[in-house]
Amino acid sequence: MNEQTLEPLRKQLAAFAAARDWDQFHSPKNLSMALIAEAAELVEHFQWRTEQQSAELDTRTLDAVALELADIFIYLIRISDKLGVNLMDAAARKISINESRYPADKVRGDARRASEYDQE
Amino acid sequence: MNEQTLEPLRKQLAAFAAARDWDQFHSPKNLSMALIAEAAELVEHFQWRTEQQSAELDTRTLDAVALELADIFIYLIRISDKLGVNLMDAAARKISINESRYPADKVRGDARRASEYDQE
Amino acid sequence: MNEQTLEPLRKQLAAFAAARDWDQFHSPKNLSMALIAEAAELVEHFQWRTEQQSAELDTRTLDAVALELADIFIYLIRISDKLGVNLMDAAARKISINESRYPADKVRGDARRASEYDQE
Amino acid sequence: MNEQTLEPLRKQLAAFAAARDWDQFHSPKNLSMALIAEAAELVEHFQWRTEQQSAELDTRTLDAVALELADIFIYLIRISDKLGVNLMDAAARKISINESRYPADKVRGDARRASEYDQE
Repeated sequence: MNEQTLEPLRKQLAAFAAARDWDQFHSPKNLSMALIAEAAELVEHFQWRTEQQSAELDTRTLDAVALELADIFIYLIRISDKLGVNLMDAAARKISINESRYPADKVRGDARRASEYDQE
Repeated sequence: MNEQTLEPLRKQLAAFAAARDWDQFHSPKNLSMALIAEAAELVEHFQWRTEQQSAELDTRTLDAVALELADIFIYLIRISDKLGVNLMDAAARKISINESRYPADKVRGDARRASEYDQE
Repeated sequence: MNEQTLEPLRKQLAAFAAARDWDQFHSPKNLSMALIAEAAELVEHFQWRTEQQSAELDTRTLDAVALELADIFIYLIRISDKLGVNLMDAAARKISINESRYPADKVRGDARRASEYDQE
Repeated sequence: MNEQTLEPLRKQLAAFAAARDWDQFHSPKNLSMALIAEAAELVEHFQWRTEQQSAELDTRTLDAVALELADIFIYLIRISDKLGVNLMDAAARKISINESRYPADKVRGDARRASEYDQE
């Protein structure tokens, strides 16, 4: 996987903030708040829908949901940039941790949290 | 920007879930909950830190924060996949909307929410 | 309803923070972060459970969930105190707004958000 | 402290839902999502404000924030009701746990998370 893959997007968002003099507001603390607020707008779309309905959205809702996903992505790239974290690297590292933590033959069909396995 | 850029990661995560028979748990509704839970773990790192402290993390905390960012990214890619949303496309579309909504010369140095601008 | 009803709890939590010199950390901003982090711990208990399973928790899980609810309640009282908001008054006011906004004969059996009704 | 103190509010909210035939939507899972979405609306008010600004809200913002706090409170009472949890009891129990976990003379002026203390 090319680790430079989000670089154009990172630069575009940095320029967007710079042009508006918004770096003064973009502390990691504040960006984490903005990110979770966007995540909640995603949750809101699903809170009164069943699991099945959440997988069968009408076009208008799906379009709105796609833009919420974009908002989360934008803040995620922005906070990573501010902290100097390479998101593609971090994801690769986390996937590798998850592979050790949840061996396929141990957890198949079981979605409990790792902490719950560990209690056994 | 190459819109296929997240494709290897999307495939890797789909295979990870398939190998564990976890698709049955991965409704968009459930994934939105998992995503916001990870976003909250990010917030937790910053809740008692000042804005300035949030930008000056020690190595150990920064490492933990990077893995929280990875968790959010992983669920973001996973839910986008389940909904058939191309995250790079959606981000490009949202940035374009933001450029119209927040003209640089109107909002410079002012971070109020768009809804508040609209009330003026 | 007696509006002074949360007063003993408010005082107890204020004394708890004062004894630890924690008021310096308890800005409304920080407390809102702590509150949402606790709300996410609640969500985590339900993210891989079906709706029905969420209503039929085993004793150990129910006990853990009760303590998460307590954490949310504690931060809710604490932030209300810091802002000088009377939570019982605010709830009474919000219920009255909801009664106008969602007339029973209009919304029966329909859980869409008010904003969605308003678009009709 | 009178543990029956939230009983009138609990009953009022149960009647509100029953009159609208909304119990079918009010699984603990769904209510946890609604609760965190309201918590995020609170966070949104503070995300671009400094800690100090968050403590000095203008009247109009404070009024809006009070209603967000009410929304969180309403869902908190509602989910507790659905799970058969007495919120006042749970809070008393949690405060007692916190008193053991954070002895005043050990943690004075230090807001690190308990997990960080435990690592020492």
